[in-house]
Amino acid sequence: MIRAEIIAIGSELLSPFRSDTNSLYLTRSLEEQGIRVVAKTIVGDDLDSLVFALGTAFQRSDVILCSGGLGPTIDDLTRDALCAFLKIPMNLDAQLLAGIEERFRNFGRKMPESNRKQAMVPQGAISLPNHHGSAPGVYLEASGKQIFLLPGPPFELEPMWEKYGLPLLRKEQAYQRKVFRIGMLPESQVDEMLKPVTSSLRDVQYTILAAPSEIEVHLLAPENAADELISASAEVRAILGNWIYAEDLETMEALVGRLLKQRGSRVAVAESCTGGLLAERITNIAGSSEYFDCGIVTYSNEAKAKLLNVPPDLIQSFGAVSEPVAKSMAEGVRELANADYGLSITGIAGPDGGTEEKPVGLVFIGLSDEKATLVKEYRFIGSRARIRFSSTQAALNLLRLKLL
Amino acid sequence: MIRAEIIAIGSELLSPFRSDTNSLYLTRSLEEQGIRVVAKTIVGDDLDSLVFALGTAFQRSDVILCSGGLGPTIDDLTRDALCAFLKIPMNLDAQLLAGIEERFRNFGRKMPESNRKQAMVPQGAISLPNHHGSAPGVYLEASGKQIFLLPGPPFELEPMWEKYGLPLLRKEQAYQRKVFRIGMLPESQVDEMLKPVTSSLRDVQYTILAAPSEIEVHLLAPENAADELISASAEVRAILGNWIYAEDLETMEALVGRLLKQRGSRVAVAESCTGGLLAERITNIAGSSEYFDCGIVTYSNEAKAKLLNVPPDLIQSFGAVSEPVAKSMAEGVRELANADYGLSITGIAGPDGGTEEKPVGLVFIGLSDEKATLVKEYRFIGSRARIRFSSTQAALNLLRLKLL
Repeated sequence: MIRAEIIAIGSELLSPFRSDTNSLYLTRSLEEQGIRVVAKTIVGDDLDSLVFALGTAFQRSDVILCSGGLGPTIDDLTRDALCAFLKIPMNLDAQLLAGIEERFRNFGRKMPESNRKQAMVPQGAISLPNHHGSAPGVYLEASGKQIFLLPGPPFELEPMWEKYGLPLLRKEQAYQRKVFRIGMLPESQVDEMLKPVTSSLRDVQYTILAAPSEIEVHLLAPENAADELISASAEVRAILGNWIYAEDLETMEALVGRLLKQRGSRVAVAESCTGGLLAERITNIAGSSEYFDCGIVTYSNEAKAKLLNVPPDLIQSFGAVSEPVAKSMAEGVRELANADYGLSITGIAGPDGGTEEKPVGLVFIGLSDEKATLVKEYRFIGSRARIRFSSTQAALNLLRLKLL
Repeated sequence: MIRAEIIAIGSELLSPFRSDTNSLYLTRSLEEQGIRVVAKTIVGDDLDSLVFALGTAFQRSDVILCSGGLGPTIDDLTRDALCAFLKIPMNLDAQLLAGIEERFRNFGRKMPESNRKQAMVPQGAISLPNHHGSAPGVYLEASGKQIFLLPGPPFELEPMWEKYGLPLLRKEQAYQRKVFRIGMLPESQVDEMLKPVTSSLRDVQYTILAAPSEIEVHLLAPENAADELISASAEVRAILGNWIYAEDLETMEALVGRLLKQRGSRVAVAESCTGGLLAERITNIAGSSEYFDCGIVTYSNEAKAKLLNVPPDLIQSFGAVSEPVAKSMAEGVRELANADYGLSITGIAGPDGGTEEKPVGLVFIGLSDEKATLVKEYRFIGSRARIRFSSTQAALNLLRLKLL
C-alpha cells in the first residue's frame, strides 16, 4: 500500500475561521489511484514548523502533498522549507521568471519584485505550470518519496494537480467508485431501502453521505471486484429508480440543463424567498444561455404584481406564500419570457416571518408548461441557507421529473 | 508562549467527505487563553499512527488536545495509544464503571460488555465527566505536557471542554485579534501597501489572507501589546482607507445591507453574466426585504429589451456586453422597481463566448441613482465561478462607496 500525507500550510488554517478543504479534493483523487491518505497535518507559515512537518511526513508516508505557501510574500516559505529540510539549493529558472512577468504584462501590470521568488526552483525539481495564478508548483523525488508542492487556492491547485501532478504519481491497483445522487429522500430512508443490497456486499464498500436535500450513495471497489460493483449498482438502480437524479458527480442543475438542451426547451424562473439562488444555480452551468431565458426575483408584492402579473387580490386573499400565488408566478414568468417552462418559488426562508399557520420552511413551488400548471407544497427544516437551497433543489427536481 | 496541538482522530476524517471541525472550536477557546495552536494533525483509528502522532505532538507542543477514539468499539484506541506511548498501565475505575452502567440503566438498557473499556483510566490521569454521552474524557500531565483526550461528537466535546478541561489549562495572557476586510485589491498590492506598518511590528503578528476578490488582514496581539495593536490598526486604516469595507467579520453583502437600511434606501438589480448571484448574495441576509425590491436576470437580448427597456439598437451597435448596455440596464431596473438605486452587471463569465476584443472576464457594472448613472469596466481572471463572484463583489463595492 502506498501511504500518502497531506500537509496544508497557512497560519489562517490554524485560526478559528478557516478549514483546510484542499485535502478533501486531493484525497478523492488519491483514493481513485488506490493510494491511501494516512495522515493530514496543518501548520502555519513558519520555517521551523514546516521543516518539522516535512520530517514527520518523511517518516510515515511515501507520497507527500503540500498545499499553500507558494505565493510571493515573506510568509510564503514552503519552497524554502523543502530546501532546508533536504539541504539542497534553489536556483532561479529564467524561463519561469519570463512566464510570470508575461502573465503580469497580459493584465497590464508590471511584475512586483516580490514575485521573483516564485521563479526559484529547488535543485532537481520539476516545475508544475499554473494557468490560474502566478505561483508555479514543484515536484521532487527524494529518498524514494514523491513530494508535490501545490498552491493554496483551490482554483489553482485543482487544475494543476489534474494536469501536471496526477500524471507523475506512482499508482497502485486503482479503485473504482460509483456514486448515486438522490435528491429528495432522507438519509435513513435511503439507508433502509438499500439494506438488501448493502448487507450482502463482499469486496465493495458502501458509504452513505448526507447533505441538505442531497444524499450520495458511494460504492467503492478494487479492480478485482469490478463485477460485484456492476451487479450492486444495478440493484441500487432497481431499488431507487427515479429517486436517483444522477450517477457520478453530475449536479442537479447540470442534469436539468442537459435535459432541457436535449429537448430544445427553454425555462424562465420567478423567485421570492430563494432570492436568485435558483437562477444562479441554473446559470452556473456554462452554456446555460441556450435554455435559460430570464429570472425574476420579486421580493415585494408590488414587484410580483407588476413584473409577473400576479393579481394583487390573489396576494390579498391568500398571502404571498400560497398555492395560488406560486401558480400565478409560474404562469406569469412563462408568459413574460415566452418560454416552454415557468418555474416559481415562494416561501418563508426565515429566521423571521413565520406564523403558526405559515411557519418558517413552508414553500410552494410552481411549474407551468403549455398544458397546465402544477404546484407542490413543501416544509423544509434548518437554517435560512438550508431552506433556500432545499427549495431550489425541489424546484429543479420537479422540472427534472417533468422532462424525463 | 504556550504551544498547543490538536489531534483529530478517526478514519472518516481521512476520507474525501468529512472535515474535522472540533479544532475550530478548540482553537477559539485556546486563543482566548493566549495559547497558540501551532499544528493540527488528523490520523485514522490505528494504534501505530496514533502513537506516532502523539510522539510528534510531544516534540513540538506543550498542550495536546485529542478528539475522538474514546468510544466502546475496537476502533477506539486513543486511550490505548496514550498508554502505549507513555508506557503506563490502565486501571479500571470502579466508580466510573458504576456511572456508565447507571447511564445505560437510565435509558432502560443494560450496559454492553464493550463499554467496560470506557471505565479504564491511564495511571495518574483524571477522568473528565461526559454528561452527553458514555465516553469519559481523560486528562494527564507527563513530562511537563498537558494532555487532554476528548470525545469526537461536538455536542459531547464542547460542554466537557468548557466545564472540565478549560479549568485545568495552564494559561498565558490573552490575545486580541483585529480583522480588516478589503474588497477589490490584489493580495500582493495590499501586502506592499502595508509594508511601512508591518515591517516594524514588534509584538503584533500580521497575516494576510486571500480569497477571490476578498483580502483579509489579521493583526494578532498579546494583552501587553494592546497599544501597539491600536496604533498599527490606525495605520492600516490610514493606508487603506476606503478600500477596507469592514472591520471584523462582516461580509460585503451584510455591510451594504446595513448601509441601505440606515439610509432608508432600496436597491433593484439587473444581471446578465452573474445569473442571479448578485440578488442571491443581497437576499442571503435576513431582513433584506426592507431594502431589496427585485432582481432581473436577463440572459437573452429579448429579455433585456422587454424587461429592462434596453433599446435593441443599443445592443445591436455596442453588443450586450458594453458600457451603454450596462448603463441602460441599471437605469431600466431602477425605473421598473421605482428604487433609489439600480445596479447592473453585464459581462462574459466564460469559459466560452470571449473574443479578442471582448475577452472572458470583461465585465461592465452600472449604478444608477436619481442624479446620474456611473459605469465601470473590469477585467477579472479565473474560472467562471470566480469571475461571477468577483463581478458581484465589485458591484456591491460600487454601491458601498456610493452609500458612504
